[in-house]
Amino acid sequence: MFCAIVRGDAPAVRVYEDDDVVAFLDIRPIARGHTLVVPRVHAPRLDDLDPEHGAALFRAGQRIARGVQRSDFAADGANLVFNDGRSAFQTVFHAHLHVLPRWRGDKLRLAAGLLRRRPHDPEATGAAIRAGLARLEAEDAL
Amino acid sequence: MFCAIVRGDAPAVRVYEDDDVVAFLDIRPIARGHTLVVPRVHAPRLDDLDPEHGAALFRAGQRIARGVQRSDFAADGANLVFNDGRSAFQTVFHAHLHVLPRWRGDKLRLAAGLLRRRPHDPEATGAAIRAGLARLEAEDAL
Repeated sequence: MFCAIVRGDAPAVRVYEDDDVVAFLDIRPIARGHTLVVPRVHAPRLDDLDPEHGAALFRAGQRIARGVQRSDFAADGANLVFNDGRSAFQTVFHAHLHVLPRWRGDKLRLAAGLLRRRPHDPEATGAAIRAGLARLEAEDAL
Repeated sequence: MFCAIVRGDAPAVRVYEDDDVVAFLDIRPIARGHTLVVPRVHAPRLDDLDPEHGAALFRAGQRIARGVQRSDFAADGANLVFNDGRSAFQTVFHAHLHVLPRWRGDKLRLAAGLLRRRPHDPEATGAAIRAGLARLEAEDAL
């Protein structure tokens, strides 16, 4: 499934990509802007993942976490989470890093999001994250 | 505090280190083998963290997660978690990656661990993780 997204054969709201990874909105988000970063090369688990692709996942995750804090929906933090194995709640066996935007006082909303997992206007959310990433790029260029 | 551990001025059960990062047992672990990976260079948040140090954090976290699965306490999975910002439950403002070993059917134990956060024989646990990492290294050398 994630391989089809990487190839562009399955629909997804993409927010970031580079030579090693593709990042797109989770279709069952826990919170607005919940993003998944996946390596282009298929690897089910950490045991199978090229460490350089793992490093690239985190670099992209850091960038996206910083981008959502510059987006119009202004998160003030983020959790980056990688679940390795069924016992660790991994459900899709294509390695992926979750980027979960966070806001002050969002604990109840997050708990509700865990139960509901409903999309929040994905096209607008994706556009807002891409704009946040562009702001980050402009900052870095200064 | 983490800087003092990096320098060797504060006690910690170290399980791994390289040029960029130091990894040691959490003193208030959620589960046996709960490890923190920190960059040697101080950075409070993702906005301050050199992306190459972030990449090194994840490389080390991947290695440790694979090592605990080869240790005598034989985890069968792990969560790698980076919390950025107070709203994301960051409590120590020196960037760090959690490596949380997981076992099939450990959900209740994990919930109890979240409340208790008591050490589990840290010296023996640290030695078991170092042995698991040595097994991984031997595998990789084949």
